Formats: sequence, C-alpha cells, structure tokens
Amino acid sequence: MTIPFLKMHGLGNDFVVIDARTRPVPLTASHARAIGDRRRGVGFDQLILIEPPQDRAANIFMRILNPDGSEAGACGNATRCVASLVGKGLGRDELVIQTISGLLRCWLHADGTVTVDMGPARLDWQQIPVAEPCDTLHLPASAGPLSDGVGVNMGNPHAVHFVPDAEAVDLTLWGPQLERHPFFPDRANIEVVSVTGPASVRMRVWERGAGITDACGSGACAVGVAAIRRGLVQGRRVTVTLDGGVLDIEWRDDGHVLMTGPVATSFAGTLGPELLGETL
Amino acid sequence: MTIPFLKMHGLGNDFVVIDARTRPVPLTASHARAIGDRRRGVGFDQLILIEPPQDRAANIFMRILNPDGSEAGACGNATRCVASLVGKGLGRDELVIQTISGLLRCWLHADGTVTVDMGPARLDWQQIPVAEPCDTLHLPASAGPLSDGVGVNMGNPHAVHFVPDAEAVDLTLWGPQLERHPFFPDRANIEVVSVTGPASVRMRVWERGAGITDACGSGACAVGVAAIRRGLVQGRRVTVTLDGGVLDIEWRDDGHVLMTGPVATSFAGTLGPELLGETL
Repeated sequence: MTIPFLKMHGLGNDFVVIDARTRPVPLTASHARAIGDRRRGVGFDQLILIEPPQDRAANIFMRILNPDGSEAGACGNATRCVASLVGKGLGRDELVIQTISGLLRCWLHADGTVTVDMGPARLDWQQIPVAEPCDTLHLPASAGPLSDGVGVNMGNPHAVHFVPDAEAVDLTLWGPQLERHPFFPDRANIEVVSVTGPASVRMRVWERGAGITDACGSGACAVGVAAIRRGLVQGRRVTVTLDGGVLDIEWRDDGHVLMTGPVATSFAGTLGPELLGETL
Repeated sequence: MTIPFLKMHGLGNDFVVIDARTRPVPLTASHARAIGDRRRGVGFDQLILIEPPQDRAANIFMRILNPDGSEAGACGNATRCVASLVGKGLGRDELVIQTISGLLRCWLHADGTVTVDMGPARLDWQQIPVAEPCDTLHLPASAGPLSDGVGVNMGNPHAVHFVPDAEAVDLTLWGPQLERHPFFPDRANIEVVSVTGPASVRMRVWERGAGITDACGSGACAVGVAAIRRGLVQGRRVTVTLDGGVLDIEWRDDGHVLMTGPVATSFAGTLGPELLGETL
C-alpha cells in the first residue's frame, strides 16, 4: 500500500496530512513514530488523518496524532491547513470540522488565510484551573519579573503577562518556574506580551511540556482575550505577532475566539513500504 | 516547474536526492535553503543533484549542497545512497561517481548494502595536518582523558582515541577542546573508540564544526585505519558501530579505504511552486 500525503504548515507548525476519506488508512502508533522521524521518516509536529465525519453536521473528521503516536485533541494551526485543503476540494468557503474535542467552524478567505472558531474563552478560576479562588484578571502567582498575569483557558491553561518588552524577558529561565508554580494544578502555558499599537501585540510563549515554540495558536487566542480584558487594545480584534508569524484574533460578543492566519503547502509525497513495512 | 525527489538516508544521515540527468535543475542557494528547512521545506543534511558526468570514466556527476546553500566536496553516506539508486536504474553493480573532489568507485551488493572506495588514508604529519613533525601513530595533543591519539586524514583531519569505554567519555566537554587544540592547524574531528571484539569497535564522534553526530562516514574510515595501525584488531577489516548504525571498513593493501553500509529510502516527493516560487 502506498499513501499519498501533503506536508503543510501554519507559521512553521508542521503537519503530514493524509486524506483517508475514500480509503481507510489504518496507521498504528508505530507507523506514526516512523513517519515522524525527521531524518529517517518525514517529520511533523502532528500527523493529520482526514476521515469521514460521524457527525452529520460536520464535513470531515480530523484525527490528530502526535510524533509519539498518541492522539491529540485539537490544533488550531492544523485546523486551518485542513480547512484550506478540504474547502478548496469541495468548493466551499465555510466548513465544519469534527475532532475528538468537538466541532470547529472554519471560513476560507480570498487572500488564502483561514479563520477557525476556537470556541469560548473560559475565565473562571476553576476553569483555568488555579489552586484557589481569585480574580483571573490579576493572578497572584509570580516568578521573577513575571507577575500579575491574566488567566485564560482555551482548552488548555494560559497565564498571560504584559511586560514593557517581551523580547527582554528570559523566558527559558522564568517560563518553566511559572509553568510549574503550585498555583497552577494542571501547570500552565506562559505568555509574555508587549503592546505594540492600538490593536496589535508582540508575544512569546513558553509551552507547557514543550518549552519556547514559534507558533502556539491557543496561546495567541489567550493573549488576544487577555489584552481585550485588560483594555490594552481598542475594540475586540487584536493582531498578534509570534516568532513564527502573525495571527489575527477576534473575541466575539458570544465569548467565542476566532483565529485567522496563513496556510502553506511545502510539498507532496508518497509513503511506501520502505517506511511503513509490508504489513500496511 | 515541479521537481520529483527521493528522501534517502544512510545511518540517519539524510538527503534530498534529485535526478537532473535528463533535465537541468538550476537550483540556487536560496532554493537549497528553502528545501532544507525541516518545518517549512523538506529538510536534509545534504541536497544531492545527480547530473551527467563531465568525465567519461564516470557514470554520473554528484553535486552536493549543504543546508546553507554552499557546495560540499564529498559525503560517503550520500555516495552510497546515490550509487544504490543509479546502479539499480542502470542495472549495474559497479559504478564510478564523479564529485568536485574526484572519482568514487562503488559496488552494490545483493543484500542491499553498498561499498564506496573512500580513497587513500593519508598518514604523514603534514597530511593530517599537525603543527610540527611527529609520529602520527602517537599524537602528543591531549585534552582531559583523551591523549595518545592516532592521526588519519580521510579528506578531512581525524584524531582517533582508544579508551576503555567510549560511552563513558564526556565528548561534549573534551571534543571541542581537542578539536581546537593548537596542534591541529585545520582543527580536527575527534573520535573515541573502544575495542569490542577481534574485528569490531564502538565509536563516538565529535565532528569539526558540527558537534556530536550519529553517522560520520570518514570518521568510521579513520577509526578502522587507526585500529589496524595499532594492531588492535585482526586482519584489515573492522566492523564499526556508530550511534546511527554499523559500517564495515576495509583498509586495502594499496592504502585505499573501502566503506560498506546500508542505504534506505524514506519517501518520494515532488517540489512545486509553493516552495520554490514561480521563477524556477
């Protein structure tokens, strides 16, 4: 069996995307690990299988595998890539993508960017979660120069810290300390943000369990929401510049967060028995 | 223009291989850098262009580009991959591959492994080179536990150190110190080696300018030659176990070093305008 794939990325967050709508692709965790090897396989942050939806409201089901073969719940950058690919194929500019975490609504734009509804921002202290009741607009946890954070849960916990100069923070020193602060029972993603204009910010992120990364979609959403909550930007749209590129965040009146950003295809390829063995 | 390629590797040393025999593929350094990006491109240690030979004694010319777009002289692991691919295509089990460093003779074996004639080992002190006259069987340069090395030039300078347990040496500490020892005017690749059997050794390598790597072909050749020079193995063939896998080294009576090892194809792909732009 040979399996065609596309290598895509959003802000450098990269994916092997396999269309399994018309033919099942029964990849095991072992296959995912082999494909995920950046020297002996293809390499990816997530492997995406596009499958027929179980939910009739959805256009497709998106299965997400990590490089260790485990299944992931959601990934905003991958959702944009898949929405672009599937939408163009179906001739649609609006799609619903089913994941194990729920349904994601997406819109394709004429400039090639894609918007994903990332769901509601959750702001109660139990939802972040933090260890005890507090106003999540001013978290009491601190580490070095990072204090007075804003708590936002976007499916995962974020603590957003506004600083005069995000570039100047030693995130490799303070990120891991604050990530594991006892105030965050599920740990937390740590963002440092400086306001750069009336509706724009620069952010850097320390991802829980991963360290500094170039492009954390849920982090950009949390940063947009935090900036709006604090009144640091005008209106409810924020342009967020990450290390890997730019995302536009809108916090809708109904509480949902919309993330808009670019999509890129790197190349097309075919997986064969050399990598997958003769058993698939 | 779309460009088909194969992703191949030898012991995890990985290559994008493009056949430019029947159609010129005028890649620029900028294209090579874009293809070399492991997240936004394909990723490789070297990009290989298979071109028609200028020398009538050769079957092909192999052009080797680094991820920064510069041209490299030779790579034993890449030569094996290219020999396997071209030999199978031509139905030949013996080939001559031309590079900017000279002609390389190769032999394909029934088990899929390939032998490359890596040329003569050069052993004079001026050839290594070292700073002053000495017996290259016992180099006077030392750093920490590394002393009494064997000097071998395989197109690049190597200093091979036999130790009781190669795993126990802190190569990230002592490798860079010895690499830049004033006794090595062109710096040196630093190998640590323990003898594991009558014709087998375990090696680890600190590569000049690159640090610890999984699979240094010229280093394995230097280690085989050094073990034979020291009389630490029987005969003139040595099985060398690197971090990335196993290579068999033979030091022929005429001074040439033959390296035999595996070849693997990861996947086939196609580069398009998304990555290369519209200009190619």
